[in-house]
Formats: sequence, structure tokens, C-alpha cells
Amino acid sequence: MRAVDIIIKKRDKGQLTSQEIDFFVQGFTNGDIPDYQASAFAMAVLLNGMTSFETADLTLAMARSGQVLDLSKVVDIAVDKHSSGGVGDKTSISIMPMIAACGLPVGKMSGRGLGFSGGTLDKLESIPGYRVDLTIDEFKKQLKEKGIVLTGQSLDLAPADGKMYALRDVTGTVPSMPLIASSIMCKKIAGGAQAIVLDVKTGLGAFMQTLDEARELGELMVDIGRLAGRKTVALLSDMNQPLGSAVGNALEMIEAIELLHGRAPKDYYEHCLHVAAHVLLLGQRAKDLDEGRRLAEKSITDGSALETLRVLVQAQGGDVSYVDDMSKFERAKFVDVVPAPRSGYISQVHARRVGEASVALGAGRAKKSDSVDHAVGFIIHKKVGDLVQAGEPLFEVHANDQTKLTEARQAVLEAHLFSDEFVPPLPLFYE
Amino acid sequence: MRAVDIIIKKRDKGQLTSQEIDFFVQGFTNGDIPDYQASAFAMAVLLNGMTSFETADLTLAMARSGQVLDLSKVVDIAVDKHSSGGVGDKTSISIMPMIAACGLPVGKMSGRGLGFSGGTLDKLESIPGYRVDLTIDEFKKQLKEKGIVLTGQSLDLAPADGKMYALRDVTGTVPSMPLIASSIMCKKIAGGAQAIVLDVKTGLGAFMQTLDEARELGELMVDIGRLAGRKTVALLSDMNQPLGSAVGNALEMIEAIELLHGRAPKDYYEHCLHVAAHVLLLGQRAKDLDEGRRLAEKSITDGSALETLRVLVQAQGGDVSYVDDMSKFERAKFVDVVPAPRSGYISQVHARRVGEASVALGAGRAKKSDSVDHAVGFIIHKKVGDLVQAGEPLFEVHANDQTKLTEARQAVLEAHLFSDEFVPPLPLFYE
Repeated sequence: MRAVDIIIKKRDKGQLTSQEIDFFVQGFTNGDIPDYQASAFAMAVLLNGMTSFETADLTLAMARSGQVLDLSKVVDIAVDKHSSGGVGDKTSISIMPMIAACGLPVGKMSGRGLGFSGGTLDKLESIPGYRVDLTIDEFKKQLKEKGIVLTGQSLDLAPADGKMYALRDVTGTVPSMPLIASSIMCKKIAGGAQAIVLDVKTGLGAFMQTLDEARELGELMVDIGRLAGRKTVALLSDMNQPLGSAVGNALEMIEAIELLHGRAPKDYYEHCLHVAAHVLLLGQRAKDLDEGRRLAEKSITDGSALETLRVLVQAQGGDVSYVDDMSKFERAKFVDVVPAPRSGYISQVHARRVGEASVALGAGRAKKSDSVDHAVGFIIHKKVGDLVQAGEPLFEVHANDQTKLTEARQAVLEAHLFSDEFVPPLPLFYE
Repeated sequence: MRAVDIIIKKRDKGQLTSQEIDFFVQGFTNGDIPDYQASAFAMAVLLNGMTSFETADLTLAMARSGQVLDLSKVVDIAVDKHSSGGVGDKTSISIMPMIAACGLPVGKMSGRGLGFSGGTLDKLESIPGYRVDLTIDEFKKQLKEKGIVLTGQSLDLAPADGKMYALRDVTGTVPSMPLIASSIMCKKIAGGAQAIVLDVKTGLGAFMQTLDEARELGELMVDIGRLAGRKTVALLSDMNQPLGSAVGNALEMIEAIELLHGRAPKDYYEHCLHVAAHVLLLGQRAKDLDEGRRLAEKSITDGSALETLRVLVQAQGGDVSYVDDMSKFERAKFVDVVPAPRSGYISQVHARRVGEASVALGAGRAKKSDSVDHAVGFIIHKKVGDLVQAGEPLFEVHANDQTKLTEARQAVLEAHLFSDEFVPPLPLFYE
């Protein structure tokens, strides 16, 4: 078998066999197949596509390119949850403790933020001492003993994916459905997940801007899951406006913890309950979505989810006092409350622009090597459909630099659009 | 400007500007743009195409990636002739002396054979001592003093093309019209050609198997020539069966020289006169094709073309006695005359299969680093449309190894098809 023949087959719109895909991924991982062949292959896949079968084969080949976790001796059923990324999405931090508190052990490996989209690890690191670099053995031990883990992606898992993503980034081959779907799913499978709930975001602040694209990605990932023998559900959720109110690392941590205290913006609360219910159902802890929702809600009202968060933070070396005294979180030097410039219905809070403004403030990364400022960000007070009066607080800017504050204020003001006519609120989920 | 944005633009079917193409080619030539970006770009070009304008820009950028010959002080009008490659195509060796003998100086840089297609340099090297590695200064000096040069491609010309071709070869990006056309034309332009006659082969033994493909390539190269300010003519010639009778290096040299002695297969003779007439017309040595043809014919009958060949061989260090005593050429140990297995009209002599059989005998190269055996090859006695009797000589195998002889005999027998019905001969040229 020769790499060039596999490239030619895909170039000519052929369907690759499992053996061909395995050969290519193995060769690429161990360096026998050079980057210049892999990038030509990626471009051919982007332009000519792949069937669900090929994409499932690619996913499994990438999952097998490194260590594949076997959690069958650790938990009864290994569940995982993945969000395709957006602005203000701190869901994992709230729902992981809820799920674990309901008696379903959960271990999850998350990523860092890049571009306008935030990352769970950056948020978690707002708590001093919190470790996101657990080894695979530490991961398994903590999952068995504490029933909850939330750490970073191990380098030993799916190394082909990391190598391929770096190459795609510089060769214009990122926006390919089969490559995106296999990249997400191979990490879940390598991480040992047997049941996966996918939260595919769609809208102005998502990678999938249209509902059609998001649906296509969701369906493809569900197909991959089915072909790989993993129970998989995909939810389509709105990312036209930021999720919840807080955007920025410490600010989002506070909002995520506030939810477990029973205080959270309504949209964020509803979003978390819906996702948690799906995880509990797929993990066989609830017999239907209603029961999942009731159990999740109860974990908040009875304080068990908050207690589970304390267990998590303690287990990973973080300062547990932050969970109860949120004033301890690092605060920005300057806080500017921006009033609504006019009265009317909010018709848009452009999620991507808010995300980009938070990167400009220092909350995110323009490139991978950038460091992040945990304190800065925004509190968005109003949602699409809300009726506001001129002069009412519209949003807050938390900044450590006056120039950046001024620029961010302007950018986020422009992200807000107003209407004289009634505007219906945006749905939380589609379909 | 960033390489990845240029790749993305082509991926999304955009039309690249001259500046973008220059940036990419320059960066690739000097190593700033790595192979993995160039291969993704090549795949995007292959699958999404390029306009004539983009292809002309690419051609000029590659021509300018190294030294560009200026022959304006050497000759009045620098003419060049290019064949897209085939089996038994020794045209350059015959027509260059004819053209020079008609008073039109010609210097040409040729290539080596690869795969089923032979190369002029390998044929020339059948004459002991013949140098194909002239420097650019030697090229200019000989062109000025002798009016004829036939040597190898200088490494200093169009280095981007050599680098790109090596990459295309291993990334499945060879069969792209814009990439093929620009690769051919950039070398002609870098070589200083002001007028170019292109002989685009079509058929079973050509890279362009259909007439439509050959026409598309021819038209694209004529467009490039026009946009680059070069007079360009493209001829479409048949390559379903080998050209002439001889296939193999020394055997083809002998046939090419025999033509100048006035003895040659009719198809090869007609092919050479037609191409030579076009070169003489484009080089302003003839006022029309008829005059070009008459001049070319006269150069054979009056012996001036043969004398010019002697001048060429002498100038490049070859043993001139080979031009008059062709028994001196190295001969294969075994010659097997294969009789026709049946009577009938010849309906096919599959050029590619004959070419591949000659590579198997050792006359060509399966890969670039292979050496060639000058003595081996075939003499094909019959053409499509010929009526043969069973037992009549059909072809000869010239081999240096009995096992290879047996295999080649079988392969070339299978390349011949017979019909009981009359079969018309193949045209030499189309349109």
C-alpha cells in the first residue's frame, strides 16, 4: 500500500477502505507519511468529502493512534459530554458535579480556549492550585474514588489528532465536516467514553453558523458513534448570543458555581438542566428525560452538587474556599457598567463579537502560546427579546487596562442591536 | 500576505491575483513556504481549477523563480518545440537539424524518459561522448556559432517547477491541467523561447488519453503563451500507436538519423515534416506551411540536415562516425523476429503497453534513479490499418536477457489487436 495511491483515490472521489485509512493514520502518526502527503490528503477530503463509514474508520484509526482508556473496571458506564464551543459556555463546570451527585460517575478531559471561543481549562485555573494535568493513572484513580474528574486532554490520547489538527490549521483544511467530526469523536473514544452527549452550538458565535451545518455535524457524529458502538446523542443549541451572563474565566467560574448555589441566569440554568438530563438518561441513571431533569434539579436544591464540586476541587488540588466565598476570585482593576444607549427590544447580542472583544481584553488567546488574564471579561445583563429602558445597565466591562476597556466597551455596545418592535427570545435548543 | 490565506482562497474557488501567486511561488522556491502548504495548494488547484490568467501568472512566476535566458542577442527569433511525450517519439532528433539547415537557429533543452514515455536525452546518449549537460554559457555560445543545440534542462532554470513537480509526484497532484500546462510553459519561457510549437499527443500512449483533454491542454498552453507575449501554436497528434517503427534508445536514434538519410517509416516522415513546417513558419523562415514543408523536405534531399546533425554531434562531443555508420550503435544480444499469429487488419498497437514493455526490457525507467539500457527495444513493423498475413514479421524484440525477451514478446503480442474487417489507418494529426 502506498500513501500516494490513497490520496489519489480520495482525489478521484473514491471511498477508502478501513485498511487504507488505518495505513494512512498509522503512517502519519509514526512519521512514515510526511506532512506534505497528509495535507494533500486533508485538502482532498475537505473538497471531496467522506462517507459516514469512512469518517467512522478515520475516527477509530485516530483513537487507536495512542493509548485508548479502558474504564470498564472503573465505572459501570463511562459517560462524556462535549460542547462544540462558544461564548459564555461554562456548562461542564456546573453539570459535571450535578451528574456525579446523582450517582453517575463522570470523568472528562477538556480543552483550552482559542480565538473567540473560551475553554473549560482556562476557567478552572481561576481557582488557585487547581490541577488540569492529571496523568491517566491519576484520572482513573480519582474517577473510581471520587466519582468525578475534570482535567486536560492527555498527550497520550489520539496523538494523530493533535498532529493532524496542527497541520490543518496552517493548510486551510480546518472546515471539513468529516475532519471536524472525527477530531472530536476520536478523543472521546480514546478517553474511554461509552455514552456521549454532544452539545452542537449553532449561530453567530459558533463554528457552525447555520442550523443546517450544525445538524449535519451532529448527525455525522451520531453516525460515527453508532458505527463505533458508542451510544451517542447530539443536541443543537443556540449560540447567537452568549450563554448565561458571564463571559471571561473567573466571571464564568463564579456563574457556574452560583448555579449550584441555586442562583443563575434562567437561560443558563435551563440549558444545564437539559444537557444534564440527557447525560443521566444515556448513563442509565434516569429512565427518561423528565426523571433526569428532576434528579438534576434536586442535586442543586439539596446541595449535593455543590458538595460534589468541593470534592472535585479538593481532589485536584484547588483552594476549596473559593466554592463558598466567590469574592476570593481575582477581580479586574476597572469595572465599567455600561447603560443602554436607547430604549427598545434587544434584537441581537452578537456572540462572536463579544467573544472577540473578550480576547482583546486578555481573557482569551489569539494564538495558542498566549497567556490569559483570568479576571477580565463581561457581564451581559440583557438577552435577545428583553425590553430595556435607556440608561438601564446593559453590560459590565471588567478590565485591567483603561485603553482596552474603552475599546471593549465600544465593541460590545456595537454587538447589541435594538428594535422598536417586539422581538421573540431565542430558543435555547433547536429540534 | 499569508500562505494559508492563499490556500483558503483557492480552496473556496476564488481567483488568485498575480501578487498572491508570485508570493506563493517565491516563498515556495526559497523555502519560506513549506512543502505541506504547497501540496495542499496543489490539491486545491487540481480540484478547483485555475483560470487562464491565473495559469499564466503561475507560469511566469515559476519561470522567474530562477535565471531567465535572454537569447535576443544570440538569435533573431528564439524558437522552441515541445512534445507532451509518448512512445517512439524521436521527432526532436530529426527536425532540429532540418530546421537549423533551413537557416533558423534552434537551441533546445530536453528531458529524460520516465515511465512508459521515452526521453530525448536518453536517446542522444546512445552516441558515445555526446554531452547533454551544457552550461548556459556553452548553450548560448554553441547556438550563436553553430545554430543548433540539443542538451538537457539546466538546473538553474525554473527551480520552482522542479521542486513542485517532485512534490506533485508524491501527493497525487500530477494530473491537473493548469499545473501541467504551467510546468511545460515555464521551462520554455525560462529557456528564452519567443515562439513555441507544442506537439500535444493524444491517445492510448499519451498522458492526455482523450482528444478533449489534449485540446484543453493545447488551448490552455496557447492562452498562456498569448498572455506571456510568446507566439504559440499547439498541434494535436496521435499517440494511440507508437510513432514510427523504433521504440528504444539506440533503435530510435538510428530511425531518427535514417530519416535524414531519406529513409524512414512514412508516418514518422510525415509527422516530422508537419512539425518542422510549423516551426519554420512561426520562426518567420517560411511564409506559409507549404513553403515550410518544401524547405524541410529539401534539407533532407540535399543532405544539409544530415550535415547539420554532424555539426551538432561534433559540437557536443559525440562520435560523429555514428551518424554515417549506424552499425556502430550498441546492439542487443538477442533479436527475436515475432511473426503475426493470424491474418487480418491491424486494429490496435497499444502504444502504452509497448512503452511499458520497453521499460520492462530496460530501455526506460520505472523510477527516476534507474539507469537505461540503450540497446534494447522494439521494431514495430505494422501500423493500424495494415493488412497482414499470418507468419509475416509483426515486430522485433531486441533484448539483453532471455527471460525479459520472452515476457516482452508476450506483452507486445498482446498489444496488437486484429480484425477481419477493414480498419482505416489512424490520422497523424487531429484538427
